[in-house]
Amino acid sequence: MNGVSGKGTGLWLVGARGSVATTTAVGIAALSRNLAGPVGLTTASEDFAGVPLAAFGDIVIGGHDVGTTPLAEKALALSAAGMIDGALVAAVSDDLTAFDPNILPVPSAPTQQGEIEARALDILDFKAKFDLAHVVVIDVSSTEPLPAYRSEFEDRALLEASLATPGVTVLPPSSIGALAAVQAGAAYACFTPSTSLNLPVLWQWATDAGIPFAGQDGKTGETLLRTVLAPMFTSRGMKVRSWAGTNLLGGGDGSTLADPEAVRSKLASKNRGLHALLGNDVVAPLHIDHVPDLGDIKTAWDHVSAEGFLGSRVLLQTTWSAYDSMLAAPLVIDLARLLSLAQATGESGPMGAVGCFFKDPWGSDVHAFAEQSKVLVEWAQRVATRLPVGTP
Amino acid sequence: MNGVSGKGTGLWLVGARGSVATTTAVGIAALSRNLAGPVGLTTASEDFAGVPLAAFGDIVIGGHDVGTTPLAEKALALSAAGMIDGALVAAVSDDLTAFDPNILPVPSAPTQQGEIEARALDILDFKAKFDLAHVVVIDVSSTEPLPAYRSEFEDRALLEASLATPGVTVLPPSSIGALAAVQAGAAYACFTPSTSLNLPVLWQWATDAGIPFAGQDGKTGETLLRTVLAPMFTSRGMKVRSWAGTNLLGGGDGSTLADPEAVRSKLASKNRGLHALLGNDVVAPLHIDHVPDLGDIKTAWDHVSAEGFLGSRVLLQTTWSAYDSMLAAPLVIDLARLLSLAQATGESGPMGAVGCFFKDPWGSDVHAFAEQSKVLVEWAQRVATRLPVGTP
Amino acid sequence: MNGVSGKGTGLWLVGARGSVATTTAVGIAALSRNLAGPVGLTTASEDFAGVPLAAFGDIVIGGHDVGTTPLAEKALALSAAGMIDGALVAAVSDDLTAFDPNILPVPSAPTQQGEIEARALDILDFKAKFDLAHVVVIDVSSTEPLPAYRSEFEDRALLEASLATPGVTVLPPSSIGALAAVQAGAAYACFTPSTSLNLPVLWQWATDAGIPFAGQDGKTGETLLRTVLAPMFTSRGMKVRSWAGTNLLGGGDGSTLADPEAVRSKLASKNRGLHALLGNDVVAPLHIDHVPDLGDIKTAWDHVSAEGFLGSRVLLQTTWSAYDSMLAAPLVIDLARLLSLAQATGESGPMGAVGCFFKDPWGSDVHAFAEQSKVLVEWAQRVATRLPVGTP
Amino acid sequence: MNGVSGKGTGLWLVGARGSVATTTAVGIAALSRNLAGPVGLTTASEDFAGVPLAAFGDIVIGGHDVGTTPLAEKALALSAAGMIDGALVAAVSDDLTAFDPNILPVPSAPTQQGEIEARALDILDFKAKFDLAHVVVIDVSSTEPLPAYRSEFEDRALLEASLATPGVTVLPPSSIGALAAVQAGAAYACFTPSTSLNLPVLWQWATDAGIPFAGQDGKTGETLLRTVLAPMFTSRGMKVRSWAGTNLLGGGDGSTLADPEAVRSKLASKNRGLHALLGNDVVAPLHIDHVPDLGDIKTAWDHVSAEGFLGSRVLLQTTWSAYDSMLAAPLVIDLARLLSLAQATGESGPMGAVGCFFKDPWGSDVHAFAEQSKVLVEWAQRVATRLPVGTP
Ligand SMILES: NC(=O)c1ccc[n+]([C@@H]2O[C@H](COP(=O)([O-])OP(=O)(O)OC[C@H]3O[C@@H](n4cnc5c(N)ncnc54)[C@H](O)[C@@H]3O)[C@@H](O)[C@H]2O)c1
Ligand SMILES: NC(=O)c1ccc[n+]([C@@H]2O[C@H](COP(=O)([O-])OP(=O)(O)OC[C@H]3O[C@@H](n4cnc5c(N)ncnc54)[C@H](O)[C@@H]3O)[C@@H](O)[C@H]2O)c1
Ligand SMILES: NC(=O)c1ccc[n+]([C@@H]2O[C@H](COP(=O)([O-])OP(=O)(O)OC[C@H]3O[C@@H](n4cnc5c(N)ncnc54)[C@H](O)[C@@H]3O)[C@@H](O)[C@H]2O)c1
Ligand SMILES: NC(=O)c1ccc[n+]([C@@H]2O[C@H](COP(=O)([O-])OP(=O)(O)OC[C@H]3O[C@@H](n4cnc5c(N)ncnc54)[C@H](O)[C@@H]3O)[C@@H](O)[C@H]2O)c1
Ligand code: NA
Ligand code: NA
Repeated sequence: MNGVSGKGTGLWLVGARGSVATTTAVGIAALSRNLAGPVGLTTASEDFAGVPLAAFGDIVIGGHDVGTTPLAEKALALSAAGMIDGALVAAVSDDLTAFDPNILPVPSAPTQQGEIEARALDILDFKAKFDLAHVVVIDVSSTEPLPAYRSEFEDRALLEASLATPGVTVLPPSSIGALAAVQAGAAYACFTPSTSLNLPVLWQWATDAGIPFAGQDGKTGETLLRTVLAPMFTSRGMKVRSWAGTNLLGGGDGSTLADPEAVRSKLASKNRGLHALLGNDVVAPLHIDHVPDLGDIKTAWDHVSAEGFLGSRVLLQTTWSAYDSMLAAPLVIDLARLLSLAQATGESGPMGAVGCFFKDPWGSDVHAFAEQSKVLVEWAQRVATRLPVGTP
Repeated sequence: MNGVSGKGTGLWLVGARGSVATTTAVGIAALSRNLAGPVGLTTASEDFAGVPLAAFGDIVIGGHDVGTTPLAEKALALSAAGMIDGALVAAVSDDLTAFDPNILPVPSAPTQQGEIEARALDILDFKAKFDLAHVVVIDVSSTEPLPAYRSEFEDRALLEASLATPGVTVLPPSSIGALAAVQAGAAYACFTPSTSLNLPVLWQWATDAGIPFAGQDGKTGETLLRTVLAPMFTSRGMKVRSWAGTNLLGGGDGSTLADPEAVRSKLASKNRGLHALLGNDVVAPLHIDHVPDLGDIKTAWDHVSAEGFLGSRVLLQTTWSAYDSMLAAPLVIDLARLLSLAQATGESGPMGAVGCFFKDPWGSDVHAFAEQSKVLVEWAQRVATRLPVGTP
Repeated sequence: MNGVSGKGTGLWLVGARGSVATTTAVGIAALSRNLAGPVGLTTASEDFAGVPLAAFGDIVIGGHDVGTTPLAEKALALSAAGMIDGALVAAVSDDLTAFDPNILPVPSAPTQQGEIEARALDILDFKAKFDLAHVVVIDVSSTEPLPAYRSEFEDRALLEASLATPGVTVLPPSSIGALAAVQAGAAYACFTPSTSLNLPVLWQWATDAGIPFAGQDGKTGETLLRTVLAPMFTSRGMKVRSWAGTNLLGGGDGSTLADPEAVRSKLASKNRGLHALLGNDVVAPLHIDHVPDLGDIKTAWDHVSAEGFLGSRVLLQTTWSAYDSMLAAPLVIDLARLLSLAQATGESGPMGAVGCFFKDPWGSDVHAFAEQSKVLVEWAQRVATRLPVGTP
Repeated sequence: MNGVSGKGTGLWLVGARGSVATTTAVGIAALSRNLAGPVGLTTASEDFAGVPLAAFGDIVIGGHDVGTTPLAEKALALSAAGMIDGALVAAVSDDLTAFDPNILPVPSAPTQQGEIEARALDILDFKAKFDLAHVVVIDVSSTEPLPAYRSEFEDRALLEASLATPGVTVLPPSSIGALAAVQAGAAYACFTPSTSLNLPVLWQWATDAGIPFAGQDGKTGETLLRTVLAPMFTSRGMKVRSWAGTNLLGGGDGSTLADPEAVRSKLASKNRGLHALLGNDVVAPLHIDHVPDLGDIKTAWDHVSAEGFLGSRVLLQTTWSAYDSMLAAPLVIDLARLLSLAQATGESGPMGAVGCFFKDPWGSDVHAFAEQSKVLVEWAQRVATRLPVGTP
């Protein structure tokens, strides 16, 4: 963020060897080397021209993952699947290899409290090692099943006791990862529909700690489209009666979501915006199907039926088709830049201002995308004025 | 607009026996009798709750048409084609018959100046007869071919001379109709892509006359969708490379547009917003095909190809299908209410504030629909404060 | 079938007051009165010109239903939902009322054997009353859940014992209805995916009885399309990798299929043809969603991904949209005519020749629609030669 | 065709350096080296198991082209555009380079007769050089505008005189190429919609010469789909009222067809099958748009509206998307094998038997694809019996 002092921005990815993470790493390297333009990035637009955001070359990647595949190898696989251009992967291969030692296995410990501390330590080591001004932790790991209710979810003392008891697993991994960010004083974003900070006690915990945090579940394809289209019907006074959707995808995320438990949190998250925008009467069946041969391309069909003037019918079908990780990665980079700005400008708590990036925006009730985009630009321009002139 | 004084709002339709006009008349009648809710109307939303707009029952319909089919008969035909519910048409049949005498043949005269005056007189008679506070003239007649350039289009003196010369046809019918509104001191809106006031000299003429005027070409289906979707790509930093479209329709408008001359103005108008939003490099082939068996249902397929992160491809297809006049009629009613408000509050000149209703918004460069909708609400709430309390 | 002797064809519908049945009744009446041409009927084509099939006016409708709504009332409801033209319904209302007394409640009895006999008696009474040459029983009742396995399903003696035991329910209603047809010596067709004769012991029973029988589950929309398209890929040597489908529908059938138990038999039946044509490796997720506001229009989206030359990808999407009962009813009439011909010409056992009408064709392994259509025409022309000249 | 004698099959391509030709060459090489399976080839199916067709390794490629880009370079470009796998292109690069000297510039001569002779000589040299049993000439060059009528088109003597007159251009290039095949005694197929043999005098000329010839215009994507779907409607007795289509494509063929003259022959050819199958009343607007950013992927949207039972509407939309040359190349290989078989078995004249490969099948009125496929298999199996046992 500040070229003069040499202090960069750290991007600590939970799930750092996955498809979204690898695409992010390739992207950071390609942008730094000017091998690609900043297409697909919100923060590269004119609207952010005066806002001091981290230069791509000043972003260092680290993270945790349960897997061990080297980034360069994963990138090759994505290239073989047609997702990333082979020449580009070859050109950034050395950068990927340079990131690799920053990606550590998820540490284990006798208690979950111990796990949180070990993870936080990894983050702080990373910060120190690269002399970083800020670290932004972003969870891009596999979607988890939602946990069954426990009384600890509403009572911090109870929770801390369980966290400190050896052998007790009270929180899911995503929440442990989020608390590690809290403990390390890092900004945090949850790009998945997993539990994360989304429990009353954890929400309060992060708020008290004063970090800026953002979520939840990246709004990339079909859901983005829906929060663009639904306000159109509302503005024109039409009543949407049904909005049916089917998603087809292969790839890593596709096979995770083939699990009916894991898919539940995703489906809930995907439909939240629709109901917020159109009311709860809208009939909205939604499916995610695992179709291996489609690879990393997500194809989504939506069928919308609305009542128009004098009871007439208005029908809209959409088919969206894109490499899912190619939509997600630039948002991860946007979030790294924006949350780093938030931290530099003293923002804290749930960051409704970045709600345009999420299916289920924390700290905001706004789902309409155009309105969210406006809110973001206004926020960025406003907080930027708090920084000393010449930054970065 | 003012129930107490009994002074209503006149809606003078040019092309008053066409499909859009008839649907508008059925709608006004149905809304007045509470046989239908105000679905599809922008001005019926919460956002306009405090704005004193004409009650549906206070709107009286009149107009000009070259045809003579009674409204009730036309409505029956639209019902037989599946567009309007038969029971509804039956229930408002008497109201339609009551409107019929207000719809006059287009008067002829030895000079075009004479035509303007005769038309203006018809409007003023209508106003007097029904003791109307305001008259809003809206052109919903058949789309005309665009005229070849003439030097009169830039020189008022030259133009007036030609208008006064017997046998000379210097302006197309849509412009004559617009000047009649100017002469009658009525508010005016052009719902078609025809020439209308869209010539330098006429634009100035209407501005000098101090009437509020709005245009051009109702933004109802595919074009609405496009101005909703294009900003999504822009906000996400993607580069739209091509946006191809095909429209299929039967009905009256469909057969008019089967004429390659007439369709030219429509196609130009349809693509204007796209280029304004995405730049002129976007490849945007567009077709309107006359497919009689589809009747009044317009079906539009769009295929969008964008460049996303790291050169990846994002594809979107949309298929929109609706009764075209059912989309248009509520906008005509919205415009009647809003331009009547404009006149009541002393607004004049091109009304950029109602740009959300048009493919090619006069007095505004904004095409993004969400932004346009916001502008409209803010305008309506602002001018409303100028009215005495208790209005209407 | 034989105008001279006055002996007509009886069409006995199980589920005679449902949507398909009512549409069939309206159709028979409209065709008899020449109020509609035979559009949508396979047997009205040139290919059947020389085949002596029952005239529409010689078909008499009767049946069983658990409901009691008069046919004319049901037809009005279908008309109000936009499915049948109101004027047509009015014009045939008296005919529908004339059919009504032929539609009886499903008789009950202490044993299932008693139920079979009572139903068979109703059919024979119908035959006698109208002096019918043949009766064709067609099941168009609500789709049932599939029953759990029982040893009676494979052992006739065991089954007969259970059928004769008061209070024991060994067979689902569709099988009782089918055995009633067997007992009455009527031709039989199962238009639903319910159990019907599809149990080893019943299949044998019907075969032994010498009636012609046909099934199963009408091939009307998406499935028809699939058995037309799949052979295209095969003929061109392409390998279909996935074929995903989503069906949206409201109406009576839609609400029945909203039940996860009932939908299971439907889904299995729908996918059978696909796997028969393309092999079991094809990934074929399939959904049926109940979307009430769509009414009786079924909308189906399919997404096909195939491997072409040198590993290249071929993608096909289809969206099919039609009133489901309007597709089904003409097939019911075709089946009545064809099975009556079968009986008149001494055919018996599973009628593979009419496989083109079914998702899961009994007595045939052919699913490719073009081939099925050819088989049907050849069969009809062949058996027709067995009839005395001048028939019907 | 005959491994023992070493005599292979020559495939002489007019337009041998284009996209279809290059894909064909890559394919032949890949199939010969077992680097790819015969997916996409009709002649690789079980149905042709007993038919003695040329082994892939026995096919030698040569041809004419006005361009000079080496095949390997063109293949690299197609690979860069995402069409062919890069590793595959690398693996067959030497084979492509080996084909290169067989592809000659189009010879010029003072008269068109001289051109024909020079071209025929090139073909005969090729045949001799590689000791080929048969040469099949296939035109895959750029689509030409259709020529204006001339009296020579109906009178051989007149035509021969003009052909022999220096400086006179009476026939378009495609016809010259076809006559060269006739003169060389080669089998011939026209894969384009250009004039070729499609003039009365040339048709007779080729017939008299006794070569087997086939055409016209490869049936690969949308048109294939149409001739599969149209018979479905007919078999079910539905009346198709309109069939609208839009094709989007970039690539070489896309830019050729952006020329309104060139596209005319294509559009006529594309709609011929539809009208043959459904009658001339079908409203069938059709567009081909040049959309450069889509590259070699052709995307076609079709919208079909049919009248079903009792006047109800049936709607079908299809979107087809594939690399056009990947669909065409296997058909070119199929045709090479089948026309070589035709020649080996003494067939001559227009080869209706291979009509399934063409939009406008010469020597056949059958357009329905399923029926065409059946005809082909039966023909191949029948003529195969004429060959001595043990061939090839
Ligand atoms: N457009 C998008 O791609 C998009 C949009 C919204 C949300 N998301 C979410 O982003 C996440 C990542 O998607 P992806 O396609 O990269 O999936 P992926 O399966 O390719 O990657 C997930 C990675 O997380 C790792 N992981 C699993 N459990 C872990 C744990 N407990 N701790 C640390 N790492 C762990 C895995 O080893 C893997 O490397 C998913 O939850 C997905 O739902 C993606
Ligand atoms: N969604 C929509 O329906 C929509 C959207 C945008 C614009 N428009 C425009 O609205 C207009 C009306 O559409 P429609 O579907 O009602 O068409 P229509 O053909 O049904 O009606 C046009 C009417 O105009 C009348 N007319 C023709 N020339 C006239 C003249 N010189 N003076 C007075 N009347 C004349 C005709 O007699 C007819 O009654 C068209 O120009 C159309 O392009 C419609
Ligand atoms: N295109 C199509 O419409 C189509 C295609 C294939 C199969 N089918 C099948 O046809 C059947 C009828 O469809 P529908 O849309 O007419 O449904 P529906 O719900 O409108 O009608 C079903 C009728 O069956 C009656 N019924 C229920 N249980 C019965 C019983 N035990 N005995 C006698 N009658 C009984 C009901 O009262 C109702 O009148 C369904 O099973 C459906 O799956 C329809
Ligand atoms: N699916 C398909 O790809 C498909 C289907 C049907 C028909 N076709 C037809 O196949 C033809 C080839 O398509 P393509 O995509 O390979 O096009 P292309 O533009 O890539 O190739 C055409 C080649 O023909 C050459 N050529 C031009 N004029 C010539 C002449 N007079 N003599 C010899 N060569 C000449 C050009 O130099 C070029 O190499 C086109 O006519 C196209 O309409 C293709
Ligand atoms: Na079978
Ligand atoms: Na032909």
